This record gives sequence, C-alpha cells and structure tokens, in this order.
Amino acid sequence: VTARRVAILVTGEEILQGRVQERNAGYVAGWLADRGIPPARITVVGDGLDDVCDALRALLDAGADLVVLSGGLGPTHDDRTMEAVAAAVGLPLELSGDALEMVVAGRAGIRAVERIDGDVRRQVEEKQALLPRGSIVIPPAGTAPGAVVSHGDAAIVVLPGPPWEFQQMWARVVRDVPAVARRVAAASSVARRLLRLHGVVESEVAQEVARLSPAVMDAVEIGICARTAEIEVASRGDASAVQAVDDALTAAFGNRLYSRDGSTAIEMVAAALVARGETLAVAESCTGGLLGAALTNLPGSSRWYHGGVIAYDNSVKQGLLGVDPDTVQRHGAVSDQCAREMAVGVRASLGTHWALSITGVAGPEGGTAEKPVGLVYLGIAAEGLVHAHERRFRGDRERIRERAAATAIHLLRRELFTK
Amino acid sequence: VTARRVAILVTGEEILQGRVQERNAGYVAGWLADRGIPPARITVVGDGLDDVCDALRALLDAGADLVVLSGGLGPTHDDRTMEAVAAAVGLPLELSGDALEMVVAGRAGIRAVERIDGDVRRQVEEKQALLPRGSIVIPPAGTAPGAVVSHGDAAIVVLPGPPWEFQQMWARVVRDVPAVARRVAAASSVARRLLRLHGVVESEVAQEVARLSPAVMDAVEIGICARTAEIEVASRGDASAVQAVDDALTAAFGNRLYSRDGSTAIEMVAAALVARGETLAVAESCTGGLLGAALTNLPGSSRWYHGGVIAYDNSVKQGLLGVDPDTVQRHGAVSDQCAREMAVGVRASLGTHWALSITGVAGPEGGTAEKPVGLVYLGIAAEGLVHAHERRFRGDRERIRERAAATAIHLLRRELFTK
Repeated sequence: VTARRVAILVTGEEILQGRVQERNAGYVAGWLADRGIPPARITVVGDGLDDVCDALRALLDAGADLVVLSGGLGPTHDDRTMEAVAAAVGLPLELSGDALEMVVAGRAGIRAVERIDGDVRRQVEEKQALLPRGSIVIPPAGTAPGAVVSHGDAAIVVLPGPPWEFQQMWARVVRDVPAVARRVAAASSVARRLLRLHGVVESEVAQEVARLSPAVMDAVEIGICARTAEIEVASRGDASAVQAVDDALTAAFGNRLYSRDGSTAIEMVAAALVARGETLAVAESCTGGLLGAALTNLPGSSRWYHGGVIAYDNSVKQGLLGVDPDTVQRHGAVSDQCAREMAVGVRASLGTHWALSITGVAGPEGGTAEKPVGLVYLGIAAEGLVHAHERRFRGDRERIRERAAATAIHLLRRELFTK
Repeated sequence: VTARRVAILVTGEEILQGRVQERNAGYVAGWLADRGIPPARITVVGDGLDDVCDALRALLDAGADLVVLSGGLGPTHDDRTMEAVAAAVGLPLELSGDALEMVVAGRAGIRAVERIDGDVRRQVEEKQALLPRGSIVIPPAGTAPGAVVSHGDAAIVVLPGPPWEFQQMWARVVRDVPAVARRVAAASSVARRLLRLHGVVESEVAQEVARLSPAVMDAVEIGICARTAEIEVASRGDASAVQAVDDALTAAFGNRLYSRDGSTAIEMVAAALVARGETLAVAESCTGGLLGAALTNLPGSSRWYHGGVIAYDNSVKQGLLGVDPDTVQRHGAVSDQCAREMAVGVRASLGTHWALSITGVAGPEGGTAEKPVGLVYLGIAAEGLVHAHERRFRGDRERIRERAAATAIHLLRRELFTK
C-alpha cells in the first residue's frame, strides 16, 4: 500500500546554522509530490544524538509510515545518525560485513585517504559500517552506505547528506527495496496539473480563483517562485476540477499562462530552438554569467547555445561587442541603446540566429536618481529584429540579477511561441 | 535575556513539494548562529491551517522561547498563517488599521494591482491586515505586513515567504521590537571560529580531530560544503579550545587551511586583487557562465572583474579566444592545451592581469573512455605565467560544474596568496 504519511528528517549543524543550503529535502519532496504523496512534514535538527532520536520518535509517533533521513553518516565523531535511528527504534548497532566491504571499496583510489594511518583508517571504515540490526544495506554512491530499517508499519530510509550521493542512493532504494518501492507506488487516481504564469501578480490570480466554485477552489494552490517572479498554480483533485482551473486562468490571462505541463521557460526555449535548428548567444553585463549558467544547466544545451560575452567592464562592451563608445558616452552603459547594440554585437560575433543581452544596475552601489538600483535593459536580436525592454526590479542584488536573467529568457520564449 | 531555545517554522506546499528552494530558514539560522544562538529545530509544513497550528503548538510545548515563522501571508485563500498563529496561541484575529494602511500603500503603483476590481482588491487588502489581537505590526518590505506575537515566555515572529521581503523585515524586527531584540542579543562569552580547508577529505580532518583531548573534540564540528568540496571546521567553546583546534589543523594541513575568519575563497581573491590594483577575466566552456556569475555575485566586483567569454561552442573558442584550430583538432576542446590557450586568449582580449579558464565534460552525455564525464581542465594565465590543471570530479552535471567553478577560484587564490 502507498504511504499515507511521509516525513523527511534532515540532520546537520551546518544546516541548522545556515552555512550550507539544504537540497535533499526539496529533492525527495518533489520526487514524492510527483507521485501524489507529498511529505506532511520536513524537520531539520542538529547532529546531537538525542536531537535526532527525539525527532525521529516524534515523527513515528505522529503516524509517519515512511521517514526519509538525510545526513550524519560520515566518518567523523559528530556523525551519529545510525546510532540515533537504532536508539529510536530500540535496536542495537551491529557491524555489517557487507557494509564494511562497500566502505573499503568506495574509498579505494582516493589519494587523500591513502595518506591516513592504517589504524585510524580502519576505525573510520568500521564506524561507517555500523547499522541497526536487521537493516537492509544500501550501497554507497560515495563512501557512506545507507540503510532501510523497518519498524512496525513504518519504513525508515537513512541516506548520506551530500546531494549527489543522496539522489543516486534514493534511486536505488525505490528501485531495489520492496518495502519502500511499494510505499512510493504512484497514487495515480488524482489528476494534477502545474500551470506557470509570467507577468501577473498573485492577487490577480487570487481574484480569478475566488470566482470558482468552493469545491474547485479547494483543488487549487497558488505559489510564487520568488526567484523568477513567476506564479505557479498547482491543481489536484478530479479531472474536471483541474480542467476548470485551467479554463478559468486561460480565459483571464491568455498567453501569460505559458506552460501547462510543468515545463519551465528554459525547457520550452530549448525545445523550440532544437526543433527549428536555431542557435542562441548572450551578452551579459550586470548578471555576469547568470543567464549563460542557467541556459547551460540544461543537459544538451550545446545543441542550441553557442556561448556569449560577459561584458562587465565597459571596455569589453566596446571591444568584443562593438558597442559604439558614443552610445555609452551619450546614453550610458545602462540604456536601451546599449542593450540593443550588445545583442546585435554578440549575435554578429558568434554568428547565431538569436541573441539576448542584459545591462543594468544590480546594486547595492552604482544607482543614481535617473538610473536607480533595479533598472535593467533587456535586449533581443534576430534577423531583421532588434528591440530592448526596460524593467525596474525591486529587491537586493541577488534578486535583481535572478529576475533579469529569468526575464530575458521569457523575452525569447515570447518571440519563439507567438510567431 | 537571550533566547535559549529558538525554532524556525516554514510553511508552504510549494516547499513541501520541492518546487521552490527554501531560503529563509538558512538565512535566519545563520544570522542567529553568528550570535551564538543557532536554532534547535527547523520545521517545514504545508499551508493547511491545522498543520501550521499543530506545528507551532508543538514547538511552543517543547519550550521554544523564540519562534520565527516564514510564509503564508499572501493574498490568496491558501495563505492562512496568521489564522493558524492566532489559533495556536488562543487569540482572535482582528483587522489592524495600521496594517491595512501599509498594505494599501505597498500596492500603490503596481500596474497589475490596478487591473483588479475594487471590491476584490479591498477584500484582498483586508485579508492581509488581519492579525492576532495585540500583535506588533511589522511594516511590509513588499506588500504583506508581518507581526510579532507574545505568548507566555515566547515571542513569535511572523514574516512573509519571499526571501527579500523576509530579510528586510527580519532586520526591522531585531532592531525595532524590544521583545525580540533582547532575545537575540549576542551570547558573546562563547568563542567561535570557522576554518575552511580545500584539498583535504573529511576523514583526514577526522583523524586530526581524534588526536585532540575529548574536551577539545567536543568543541569541534566538521562539515562538508558539497558544492565546493571544501571542509568547514567550526569550533566553539572557550578560547583555548578554539585555538587548539586551529593549531592542530594548521600543523597537519598547512596552507590547505586557507581561511580562519569565515572569508570565502572569492572574498579573499577579491580583496587581494583590489589591494594589488589588478584585474581578472574568465573563459568558460562547460560551466557556461557559472564562474562569472559567482564572481559577480559579490557587490563591488566591477573593481577587479572585467568580464569574459562563454565559449560553449568550439567556434567561439577559436573566434573570440584565438584558440588554434589545430589544438582542438589534435588534443580536443577538453585538453590541457586548450585550457591554456583559452586563458591566454581571454587575458589578451580583455587586457587583464589575470585570467582563468575552464573546459570539461559536464555530462550526462559527451563522455568517452579517454575523456569521461567529470574530466575538467582549469587554466590560469598572468604575465609570464600560464598553466593548466587536470581534475576528475565525481557527481552529476550540476555538481561537476559547481566544483569546476569553485576549483578555478582556488587556483587563483593560491597564486595570489603564496607569492
């Protein structure tokens, strides 16, 4: 039977102290939500034995039938998650011969490990092979094995904290461990749809949702992606409620509702460029590479993305992009004219079909009364096409840069999808 | 008196479902940890009234004397945090005239808001001005006001979810609300030091820590920053224990222990370049702009960073960077030779003192037996200096790209700090 109450328990002082951005909880939450069983709760505690043990007990007492733990499986003295799990479910820790072999094999060939004294090395290896009695061992993706522990009606999955290891091992657990596989079998009877809107504010969506019948309204959840200023509307329930939400928002917002299948703007742009056999280049000033990094985060982007110029200093705008020194002199580097010339320049230089450009004031310094922090010009160029758009973003440096990069992608999306 | 038990409560289905990366908990956790009062727990729940109410009650029952809530203050029907807080502490919700004025003022001038019907607009505005009776109103940074609610020995701080709003308003709360200000007054009697190491593995650090006395060992906490593969060692306790940890790791690792004051490698590079009056350019292939984005995330980076070339396609490596077509033909674009020529080329083109380059196979496709996924060459060039380093990173596309960018920064750090 599918799990009915899922919880995620993250351990680690570095997360509680805000030094490391946690990524596993979001990853596994998304994975589970896609299958109709989003977690009921995510808890983060420190490395202390009692903290982890108490938190796990509380989740089990609250009726969780699947608990996913992340972190605290490393070789150091403050990695005590296995001990805490054993205490919470009342089982002793035992050295697992299988786990020990995996630990030793996983560390082979790492030069830094070979620098460690034999005795200490063996001690560290044995520490990582101690699991609650009766655990199913999960082979490591890095050096730390994981475990699945059964306790009454609940399955407890214990995986290491580094995100890449966590994700690899999660894939193994849901494939290879029946007790988990059957709990995460998709609850497929619920319809789900994720709509993405760009260029609307949350209150406008609230207004439209308020016009729906109460039953349909209950199926709707509205989120803002602060990074991109996009609105996401997730609906779930019976198929007709999901369709009613879609119809109402389509009637209200037209093509500002741009995605119905969860695709992001970058994914849509990539698919369209591949289908057309066209290519893209970028010229970035205040975003400093953020747009290029976002585009190339998508595997296979080399098929349509050729590269670009980071023209942070004005000399680069003139030298590599051919921006007229007169333009910078008369209108400034943050101007409609400069954005156009940057787009035209990078397109000519790289010989692509499309080009995007960004120039703006990201702050916190450099703003003036006439050109305040947040003022950004976004340019787009293609054969016979060049224009620029002015935007005024609110927020701090990070937010202004993120929104500028996200908005540039929407400029291209609109060109590709409305012609 | 300083808070002794701090908890953070994050609400939002979009976070529980993994669609949005949560940032406020980490932010406020770091802020508090810097003052010696790291949170004991972070809890994430959905938007449901009961979920939020139950979670808050559990934290208060567990003895929390400061609870920071994030999210669920928006205008839509699923934003019910204020209602949940009121229920948890047994107070009614009341329309606050002050809050209503702030909401109306905060929405003035937003064009999309003016498109909304008057009645609906007023309804939405009043919803956001409903606070638990007796709350201290926190003026909005965006459109949603926050609140501080006193309950027995505890102060409950309720702030909106968008990170920029949250951070602005948190700064106001700790400055302007005495009940919170006195709880976050620094517990200054504890010494703290954050050491950063690069080029060592966690087990090596564990070995050194194991040699310390038990009392000193207890003062040490070892974390890995998975993104950069750096080891962070935080120590806290009395000054002599903190110094003993520093001494032991310095003796063991020399200048692989590169930072003692919390400075990151980028901050150190920036400070050194500013002090020397020198400049930097980058040439990126597989990272696609990630290195440039990381460098320019630092305010004031235009003083030392001039820009760069994203040479994703080989034609760009040859066209803008002057890489010899013969080099690509004979050694491939992912090669020691190509990395050197990219660094030399971008330095010449942008006229900077220093240049860094990155070329590699980020995957998941494009790997071969000879040049597998994870193989990356990092180049560095300066007057009379050019070399390249081969690295083999494990992990997925995102991790390989992040590590490549982070390692390039360390290349330059080592040049700047060992000469």
